[in-house]
Amino acid sequence: MRVLGIDPGLGTTGDGVVELAGSAPRLQEAGTVRTRARDPLPQRLKSLYAGICEVIRDCQPDLVALEDLYTEYRFPRTALLMAHARGTICLAAAHLEVPVVSYTPGEVKNAVVGSGRASKLQVQGTVQRIFGLPAPPEPNDVADALALALTGCYRGGNPLVVGER
Amino acid sequence: MRVLGIDPGLGTTGDGVVELAGSAPRLQEAGTVRTRARDPLPQRLKSLYAGICEVIRDCQPDLVALEDLYTEYRFPRTALLMAHARGTICLAAAHLEVPVVSYTPGEVKNAVVGSGRASKLQVQGTVQRIFGLPAPPEPNDVADALALALTGCYRGGNPLVVGER
Repeated sequence: MRVLGIDPGLGTTGDGVVELAGSAPRLQEAGTVRTRARDPLPQRLKSLYAGICEVIRDCQPDLVALEDLYTEYRFPRTALLMAHARGTICLAAAHLEVPVVSYTPGEVKNAVVGSGRASKLQVQGTVQRIFGLPAPPEPNDVADALALALTGCYRGGNPLVVGER
Repeated sequence: MRVLGIDPGLGTTGDGVVELAGSAPRLQEAGTVRTRARDPLPQRLKSLYAGICEVIRDCQPDLVALEDLYTEYRFPRTALLMAHARGTICLAAAHLEVPVVSYTPGEVKNAVVGSGRASKLQVQGTVQRIFGLPAPPEPNDVADALALALTGCYRGGNPLVVGER
């Protein structure tokens, strides 16, 4: 079971691939896809699409794990731009025929830390410990992507949530 | 000058192609791209992408005109899903190398009716009159798409707004 977790953003998208062979999750690769703020939106989405397709082709995941649609809108414009990026990622996965699952932040915290009310720092610390990293993954987008990938792995055999809600 | 106006929606996207040859705008084609509510989001975006690519290939527009990002969020979940669709449309245009312009609702009303405070009904009535249609275009998404295409035509030669803001 190999899961690609993705934390979508128009400027910086975090990605992390985790393989679950036996009981121990193994970090296969992690990084970011960045787009240039000075480029027009369609060009930025094209770069993001190309970057995500490259990651999917390289890593051949069984599943893409995304965070569920936000329910928080303190910065509506940012949320809308994130949704453009998220749509682009869903489309890349659909074109390359990889199923997409989505988890709420609470589901991710619960799967990774064991409590749906864990803090962002606790999630990062747990991700660091699980993969034996010298420091929490940077930027945060990568840690979030790895937490999503872990969630996908833990739930992958018997997913509670399949398909995009 | 041929402009494809698009009113994005996850379920129903309106599209309308207007050609400006000389001084009179001519309706070249109009319709909708629909996706099935029972399909998962990535599949729906894939259908939308395919539909928009088909319209672009058929009509060979010089420009795609979209509404600017909403600044109204009475239904945040709907707005986020619309943004997934809008991102997919931007990506299709980028892949087929058609530039994208975007206009605020006020800019569209101003270009089509002559007043930035015109009602939705006035816009529909003007669209109907300009193209000599027996009734306002249905569904509304088509009328909105045609109003965007008209705006792109009127401003196309000397656009005030180019690129996505």
